[in-house]
Amino acid sequence: MDLLDFLLSLIVIYVSAWLFGGLTVRLGQSAVLGEMFAGVIVGGSVLGLVHETETLKLLGEIGVMLLLFEVGLESDLQSFLKVGRSAAVVALIGVVAPFALGYLLALAMGLHQIQAIFVGATLTATSIAISARVLSDLGRLKSPEGHIILGAAVLDDILGLITLSVVVGLAVSGTVSWMEAGRTAGLAVFLLSLAIFAGVRYAPLLSRFLSVLRTRGSLVVAAVTFALLLGYLAGRIHLAPLIGAFAAGLVLARTEHQVHIQEAITPVANVFVPIFFVLIGAAMNLGLLNPFHQQNRPILLLAFALGIVAVLGKLVAGLGVLGGKSGADPWTVGIGMLPRGEVGMIFASVGLSQRIIGEGEYGAILLVVAFTTLLAPILLKLRYRRVRQPAAAKS
Amino acid sequence: MDLLDFLLSLIVIYVSAWLFGGLTVRLGQSAVLGEMFAGVIVGGSVLGLVHETETLKLLGEIGVMLLLFEVGLESDLQSFLKVGRSAAVVALIGVVAPFALGYLLALAMGLHQIQAIFVGATLTATSIAISARVLSDLGRLKSPEGHIILGAAVLDDILGLITLSVVVGLAVSGTVSWMEAGRTAGLAVFLLSLAIFAGVRYAPLLSRFLSVLRTRGSLVVAAVTFALLLGYLAGRIHLAPLIGAFAAGLVLARTEHQVHIQEAITPVANVFVPIFFVLIGAAMNLGLLNPFHQQNRPILLLAFALGIVAVLGKLVAGLGVLGGKSGADPWTVGIGMLPRGEVGMIFASVGLSQRIIGEGEYGAILLVVAFTTLLAPILLKLRYRRVRQPAAAKS
Repeated sequence: MDLLDFLLSLIVIYVSAWLFGGLTVRLGQSAVLGEMFAGVIVGGSVLGLVHETETLKLLGEIGVMLLLFEVGLESDLQSFLKVGRSAAVVALIGVVAPFALGYLLALAMGLHQIQAIFVGATLTATSIAISARVLSDLGRLKSPEGHIILGAAVLDDILGLITLSVVVGLAVSGTVSWMEAGRTAGLAVFLLSLAIFAGVRYAPLLSRFLSVLRTRGSLVVAAVTFALLLGYLAGRIHLAPLIGAFAAGLVLARTEHQVHIQEAITPVANVFVPIFFVLIGAAMNLGLLNPFHQQNRPILLLAFALGIVAVLGKLVAGLGVLGGKSGADPWTVGIGMLPRGEVGMIFASVGLSQRIIGEGEYGAILLVVAFTTLLAPILLKLRYRRVRQPAAAKS
Repeated sequence: MDLLDFLLSLIVIYVSAWLFGGLTVRLGQSAVLGEMFAGVIVGGSVLGLVHETETLKLLGEIGVMLLLFEVGLESDLQSFLKVGRSAAVVALIGVVAPFALGYLLALAMGLHQIQAIFVGATLTATSIAISARVLSDLGRLKSPEGHIILGAAVLDDILGLITLSVVVGLAVSGTVSWMEAGRTAGLAVFLLSLAIFAGVRYAPLLSRFLSVLRTRGSLVVAAVTFALLLGYLAGRIHLAPLIGAFAAGLVLARTEHQVHIQEAITPVANVFVPIFFVLIGAAMNLGLLNPFHQQNRPILLLAFALGIVAVLGKLVAGLGVLGGKSGADPWTVGIGMLPRGEVGMIFASVGLSQRIIGEGEYGAILLVVAFTTLLAPILLKLRYRRVRQPAAAKS
């Protein structure tokens, strides 16, 4: 990729994200909705100005890691632990319900056994990136709902790790290695806990270390490096790197440098983050929505049915908060778990590349991903408008 | 490039830049020296941990654009115009003297006529990036020397545009299209002036525009976009994109948002900038320095002779300030023009790819580039230590 092409792509991304993001904000919606819409417009479906190149994709990944790092930095580990049980129940229902509903529906619509299992598995995904960004846009990160949604989304990534490896193993070799899947997930949980608790314990040491070397902007670079490092380690144990970055934020939230890091990291994140969301939009294939193309009709029908199930399954998951003492609104939590975002896209492309599903099912899943991803910000805003007194005030 | 590989490269770049940058600062030197040295260590010559991939290269380019944008933002156009005559004289001598000396020396050492012309042309380059960064590290951007060095380096880029197109034209087709070269350069000067003067005139309008749309971090993204846009336009007329970014900084320096933009852009630049300088170091091939390899000896001899000439030619250029009223120290200005940096590398690789020079001359030029680039920060620091009363205090 030529430097000038790259500059032009960035300019188009920023200008369109800025225009459409500003527009949705004026319409009382989350800016992320506008950014994804900007991606749809400038991407291959409409104008074809921005293509997902390797470099842009990597920058987007850094962007979403910085976003989660920021979220972690603003968060308090205690608040997460307090709602841990609710988050676990929400995550579990949020995996079981969409899977069961999706599986049965896909079977009923004539898909093969293994395809139906894969389609069900795809519906279990939750995009931490989208949920976190919408909550941040609406200023609701620190509400009990916010903590439950983020906690459940992190757990969902670990459950997704099991689900994907089981389903792909089943499809490719015909057998399920529960041992293997369990060990991978166990390792993920163990290392994530270790990173956070060791990090919290040695935060003062880290803090002193940050003050030792003085070069140009060492604080922000050190913080970014720490986020990238934990992200890298998360990736090495097959978790999403953004979970590592989130953990890095949680750890640094306990140091005296927290305020300075936050001030310095915000503009950096602002530069990277829109790239991710515009690319998410650009990856949405609007061509599939055209019902006048004969071949699109079965895809649209499947997408429509799966879309309903995808929404229902996660709304049901919201009921998981009812046993707890957080006072969180179940509807808000359910809506917050809706977006499949980049996680759903990754699931779908694994299925396509492993030839578990065909182009048709792949297209239908992408439409469901797009639908749930765009629906969540809108519904969340509506729900928050209705719940005038946010539960956050109570905690 | 895989996301995890990319994260690892970034981690290595940041950690090494931070360690070596911190070290050189403790030794009383500019941090950029340490960052380039870090690149030598982690690059192919020694550890082989970081390779120049497309993505890293593009990020480095953005880094150097943001650096120059920052420099422009901190600058005052008037100060540049005040020393314009001196800068022009310095730039002109700085092209003629190294060219003449390099050409004659190369002929004397047995190179062909056209090769000698090319080698001479390569020595005319000045790296704005290195000069600007060293001046910034030493806190001397706003001295008369700083303004003359930066102004002359910008003019040098335009002169380099003519030089390169003339020499390559001569080598490839055997003829010189002075018309073509002159038109390209004239267009560059015209558009650069237009951008700056129109920009300054319409800065208030720009300022009001920046306040219209409010989304997450719109100010920093708008500023970055403006820098990328002017950089893109500069690139389209064959100037270095960083010159466009510099012009963007000069324009925004006149708006009421200047302080806020500067605060927000600094951490962003801090994250991108080290990538550029570490890659510069990583591109330095230390293997060529080994005198025990028989084939290296003629390269080392040529590099040694050209190195002396490369330093002399630019030191002479410093004398260009003597006629002016700026009171700038000629030695400081001469030293500031020394680093060939990325511009010298680009020249050399054009020569290699056009088969004007062979691997041997290419290696020798790279050594000269490395030598002048590493020498400038050290000499500049020494010179500033000697000139206790900076001329800046007088202006």
